[in-house]
Amino acid sequence: MSYFRPAVDALRAYEPGEQPSRQDDIIKLNTNENPYPPSPRALALLQQIDPEQLRRYPDPYAGEFRAAAADVLGVDLDWILVGNGSDDILTMLMRSVADTTRPVAYPVPTYALYRTLAQIQNAPVVEIGFGDTYDLPVDELVKSDAALTLVASPNSPSGNRIPTQVMDDLASRLDGLLVIDEAYVDFATGNALELVQHHDNVIVIRTLSKGYALAGLRLGFAVAPPTLLAGLAKVKDSYNVDAVAACVGAVAYRDVVHCRDMATRVCASRQRLAATLTELRFRVWPSEANFLLVRPTDGRARDLYADLKRRGILVRYFDTPGLDDKLRITIGTDAQNDRLVMALEKQRNGE
Amino acid sequence: MSYFRPAVDALRAYEPGEQPSRQDDIIKLNTNENPYPPSPRALALLQQIDPEQLRRYPDPYAGEFRAAAADVLGVDLDWILVGNGSDDILTMLMRSVADTTRPVAYPVPTYALYRTLAQIQNAPVVEIGFGDTYDLPVDELVKSDAALTLVASPNSPSGNRIPTQVMDDLASRLDGLLVIDEAYVDFATGNALELVQHHDNVIVIRTLSKGYALAGLRLGFAVAPPTLLAGLAKVKDSYNVDAVAACVGAVAYRDVVHCRDMATRVCASRQRLAATLTELRFRVWPSEANFLLVRPTDGRARDLYADLKRRGILVRYFDTPGLDDKLRITIGTDAQNDRLVMALEKQRNGE
Repeated sequence: MSYFRPAVDALRAYEPGEQPSRQDDIIKLNTNENPYPPSPRALALLQQIDPEQLRRYPDPYAGEFRAAAADVLGVDLDWILVGNGSDDILTMLMRSVADTTRPVAYPVPTYALYRTLAQIQNAPVVEIGFGDTYDLPVDELVKSDAALTLVASPNSPSGNRIPTQVMDDLASRLDGLLVIDEAYVDFATGNALELVQHHDNVIVIRTLSKGYALAGLRLGFAVAPPTLLAGLAKVKDSYNVDAVAACVGAVAYRDVVHCRDMATRVCASRQRLAATLTELRFRVWPSEANFLLVRPTDGRARDLYADLKRRGILVRYFDTPGLDDKLRITIGTDAQNDRLVMALEKQRNGE
Repeated sequence: MSYFRPAVDALRAYEPGEQPSRQDDIIKLNTNENPYPPSPRALALLQQIDPEQLRRYPDPYAGEFRAAAADVLGVDLDWILVGNGSDDILTMLMRSVADTTRPVAYPVPTYALYRTLAQIQNAPVVEIGFGDTYDLPVDELVKSDAALTLVASPNSPSGNRIPTQVMDDLASRLDGLLVIDEAYVDFATGNALELVQHHDNVIVIRTLSKGYALAGLRLGFAVAPPTLLAGLAKVKDSYNVDAVAACVGAVAYRDVVHCRDMATRVCASRQRLAATLTELRFRVWPSEANFLLVRPTDGRARDLYADLKRRGILVRYFDTPGLDDKLRITIGTDAQNDRLVMALEKQRNGE
C-alpha cells in the first residue's frame, strides 16, 4: 500500500540538471543561464533590503514587481500575475485547467516539465512531433482539442521562434487556452505579447531566469486578460513570491538597457559560435535563444557530451528519441565559447 | 463555458490578509508575525550575496538550508525537504496524496488553507469540530479514515498545543498520513518531532515565518522518513526555493540563540497580555503560540475589531460560526500590547 496517489507513484522522481559546485573550474553550458551578471542596480538594491520586509509577509501579488512589469510592457497592472519562477505559473495553469477529462497538448521536443505537470493532474497528454525544421504543427494541435495547449517560443531545445502570425492563427482556432512560453524571448527578434490583447484564451509567460540573469532569484510572470489570471490566482500559493525577489526583480526588470546590452552580446556570440560549429561540420539549427541545438556529423552526441565533460565543459545531452544524436549548447561568454571550440578541435584530432 | 476545472470555478478567490503599507502608523497584530527582527547574522549575510548565486539556478534541494536544519534538529540530511514557505510543503502533500477517492481530515477551527488545498484536489473533506477546550478529537479523526490527516500544533487560532502522547496515539491508529503542522512551535513548551522516528506515516512541518521573523523570505520545511519525502519531492517545483532564501535562512536557522531570545520575550509578553485581558473581563484561551484567542464578555467581536481598526490597531476577526464572537490577537512588543490595552480601555469607557 502506498500513501501517495497512483499518478504520483507512477511518476519518475525529478532529476536535477548537473550543477557543479561553485568552486569547480567548469564551463557550464548546460542549463541556459545568462553568462553575464544581473543588473548592477538590482545587486545594489539587494544590499539595502529593509529587515522589516523580511519580518512581514510579502505582498501576495508582488506589487512592486507587478508594477515594473506592467510599466515596461505597457499593460495594465491586472494583466500581470507573478510567479516563483515561470515554472510556478505553469503549475498554476495545470492545476487550474487540466484534469482527467481535459487533455493537454504541445509539440515535442520541448520543455520536459509540461509532461510532468500534466501527469501529476492525471490529464491525457497529446504530444505532437515537430518536423526536422521545427515548424509548428498547427493543424494537429487544433485537432487534439486540448483544454490547454502549450507552445514554447523560442522553443527549447530547438531554439526557433514561432512566427506571431502562426500563433495568432493557432489561438483563433483553439477552443481551449493557448500558453505561449516566452522564457527565451529576450534573445529573439520578436514576440507574441500582442496576442493577449486580441484573444481571450492566450496567456504569455515570461521569466527573469534567462535574459535578466536571475535564475537564482525565482521570478517569472504571466500576461493575460484579468479574467484568466483570476482563475490562476485561485490556485496560487498565497505568498508565492518572496519580498526580496519582488523588489530586486522589479529594479532588474526596469533596467531594460542592461538586459538589452547583455542580450546583444549573447546574440553576437551565438552568431559567431554557430558559424564556427558549422565550419566544424556540425549541423546547427537557427536559434533565437541563448543556446544552439547542434548535431555532430556522426550523430554520436552522447560520446561527445561525455568527452566534453572530461575536458571540463558541461553541455546538455537528452537521452530521448529524436534528440539523442544532438546536443544543446548554452551560449557562454566569448572566452567560454572559444574554450568549447578548442575542446571540440582537440577531440576531433584525437588529443 | 469556462477554461477552468469545475473545482476551481467553485473555489472562492483568495483574499489576502490586511497588509497596511509600511508607511502607515498602524499596530499590526493580525497575521502572527514576530514583533522582533530576524537574526542579525542573517541580515549581514544578505548584504554579501554573491551575484553568481543569482545568475545560476539554485540548488533544487536548498542544500545549504537543509544542512542547517539537519544540524540544528539532529536528523540526517535526507529527512529534510525544504519548501517556499510551509504552505509549499502543504501544497506538495495535497498534490501527492489527496484525490477524489482519498479524504482529507482535520479538526476545526484551524488553518483555512487546508480546506482550500483539498478542494483544489477535489478531495472529500472531513472537518471535525474542536470542543470548547480545543482537545483533539482523536476518535473522530481515526474514524474518518483519511488519506491525509492534518493537525496544527500549536493550533491557530486557538493557540493550544496537542500533547505529544495524544499525537503519538493518533499516529498509531491512522492508516493514512499524519501531518503535524508546527508553524508556531518556537513559542511552545514542547514539540512532536520525535514522532517521525517512531512512525512511518508522520510528517512534521516547520516554518521560519514566525519564530525566525522571516515571513517575507518564504522558507519552511518538512521532517519525515526519506521514503515519504521522496513522494512529496516528485510534485515539488524543481527550483522551489531561491538562492537568497536558502543561504540567508540557513544562517538564521543556525542562530538558535537569537530565535530563543526573541521567543522568550514574546512568551513573557503573552503572559502579561493574557493577564491584563483577563482583568479586562475577556475570556482568554491558554496559548503556546505568538497570539491569543480571546472573547469579549458581550461576544461582539466584529464591532470590537472595527473599533480597534479605527484606533489604528489591526487584529484578526474570523467571520465563521464558532469564531465570530472571538478575536485572534498577535503578540506584539510590550509597547504595542500596551497601546492595544489602552485602546480597549478607551473603548470600554466609550471614549
